Amino acid sequence: MRIVITGGAGFIGKKLAQALLTRGTLTDGQGRVQTLTEIVLFDVVEPEGLLHDDPRLLVRTGDIGDAGEVRELIGRETGGVFHLAAVVSANAEEDFDLGMRVNLDGTRNILEACRALGSSPKVVFASSAAVYGALDRVPDEMTILAPQTSYGAQKAMGELLVNDYSRKGFIDGRSLRLPTIVIRPGKPNRAASTFASSILREPLAGQEAVCPVKPEVRMYILSPRRVIQALLHGFDLPAERLGQVRMLTLPGISASVGEMAAALKRVAGEEAAARIRWELDPTIQKIVSGWVPDIKADRARALGFDSDRDMDEIVRAHIEDELAGHVA
Amino acid sequence: MRIVITGGAGFIGKKLAQALLTRGTLTDGQGRVQTLTEIVLFDVVEPEGLLHDDPRLLVRTGDIGDAGEVRELIGRETGGVFHLAAVVSANAEEDFDLGMRVNLDGTRNILEACRALGSSPKVVFASSAAVYGALDRVPDEMTILAPQTSYGAQKAMGELLVNDYSRKGFIDGRSLRLPTIVIRPGKPNRAASTFASSILREPLAGQEAVCPVKPEVRMYILSPRRVIQALLHGFDLPAERLGQVRMLTLPGISASVGEMAAALKRVAGEEAAARIRWELDPTIQKIVSGWVPDIKADRARALGFDSDRDMDEIVRAHIEDELAGHVA
Repeated sequence: MRIVITGGAGFIGKKLAQALLTRGTLTDGQGRVQTLTEIVLFDVVEPEGLLHDDPRLLVRTGDIGDAGEVRELIGRETGGVFHLAAVVSANAEEDFDLGMRVNLDGTRNILEACRALGSSPKVVFASSAAVYGALDRVPDEMTILAPQTSYGAQKAMGELLVNDYSRKGFIDGRSLRLPTIVIRPGKPNRAASTFASSILREPLAGQEAVCPVKPEVRMYILSPRRVIQALLHGFDLPAERLGQVRMLTLPGISASVGEMAAALKRVAGEEAAARIRWELDPTIQKIVSGWVPDIKADRARALGFDSDRDMDEIVRAHIEDELAGHVA
Repeated sequence: MRIVITGGAGFIGKKLAQALLTRGTLTDGQGRVQTLTEIVLFDVVEPEGLLHDDPRLLVRTGDIGDAGEVRELIGRETGGVFHLAAVVSANAEEDFDLGMRVNLDGTRNILEACRALGSSPKVVFASSAAVYGALDRVPDEMTILAPQTSYGAQKAMGELLVNDYSRKGFIDGRSLRLPTIVIRPGKPNRAASTFASSILREPLAGQEAVCPVKPEVRMYILSPRRVIQALLHGFDLPAERLGQVRMLTLPGISASVGEMAAALKRVAGEEAAARIRWELDPTIQKIVSGWVPDIKADRARALGFDSDRDMDEIVRAHIEDELAGHVA
């Protein structure tokens, strides 16, 4: 089976490709376990730091907003797509037209190319907890979407498309709403949430990090390890277990920033925890306070998705996966 | 103020134009009452049976799926848009691409043309109770959208766009979810709901009508009179009363088909009610049973929208408005 990963140069795309190469199989729409013959990492740029030199792994660059390029990418033999490509939150807010082109039109291009295959391929769409928007209660699967960012609105439209293309039998789709991923490896990015990884990642690597929000701010989070497991499980899941509602909110844990710092101290010691400098940035504090601090993800749990157990587990997983077991 | 009505050849578009000509004013985004100088009815076909010969009324035909035509239609001076144009339910289900082109791309074209004005014009978008889809409970404003038709999915995406364009300040939008409109004047159409008007309209005009569903089937309905009032009220409403969530479910009444027939008998007599032939059509019975039979529309009620009082009022309004007071 040939698999395409869009947004393949991002850290989730690369980790997913590595997990697929190791695993070597995925379950198709008929419930048959298929050997992976080709994994195409598609992105606007070449992925950096790809470790695997595997004949099954191909890298392609291109523009997801170009319908012709995407048709050519999906080709005539793709058995499944992980659609991770997106213009992230802050960027989609700054450049509305770019967000619409990549996040909405890009998703349509992928779905149309899959429909053209005529084989109803599996499509796992990376959606986001940003679809919920500002709410006065803990949302669940049945809560209205009132996104308060263009990114969230575009993801919500993508979910509706995935649902409708699945209902029509054009694809066999599943939209997974990702919590904030903590601890992201690599460097800080321009997302307002980037500090949540930095305040753990940098101290673990012996560097200082600034925390721009108050310790009581709560976030809904999931580790890189669990998100890769969720993407694979989301692909393998039989369609009949999903029924007509193809969107799922992934289980995460609700942790305050203070609890994150406390876990760092427990797992890596006083010295590491002392590398966090608390300097309030009112702009970031305001943005992050508007996010959903917790979500009831009972449906996804019942379907076999799982969250991290606690913050300590998230910190330990990072030390194992990214630091070869050693704290600086 | 110049007003554009898309879908202007439909019965709601024509009734709305007539109500606007009679009224002569609308409230702009700054709360100022503006005199209507031009009302443009835009549709793919010319409207039939327009009674008014009014110098303020213009008719234009064109393709809403063509971005250039729509930009030209909205021009540089449009003060407000009622966006009613749509490929209806059964048609969007049969011809997926046409539905996407008109219902999604057409809506985007309207919103982009309004954004290009730079004046953040008011846009009233006619959405539909079809956005809800199959649910196991009575939905309200906070219930998830899980549309089970392409029409419903396209309307739900339109709502998300109206919300986001409003949040960005590109437009001052409001999406009104319309219940099934009963009693529609004119001829039966291809909508699965068409019988709900036919079983009242035809007997009132002295003709037989077939009812293809069981008397206990419940529907969420609103009269043409009330829908016109709602569109005007939805336009005039100040943005600050809507806040960030620009979608509203219009209040309707939940009536069983048996109650509709009983109202016909009470208002128009035994003879009229006897003109309904009950012939079950399992296909239509199945489609209609999947619809939401009732919705809690508390938010719209609090904002001054109102439903009909009961079925008798709906039947009487039709006799007054369409039959000059006389039952056949």
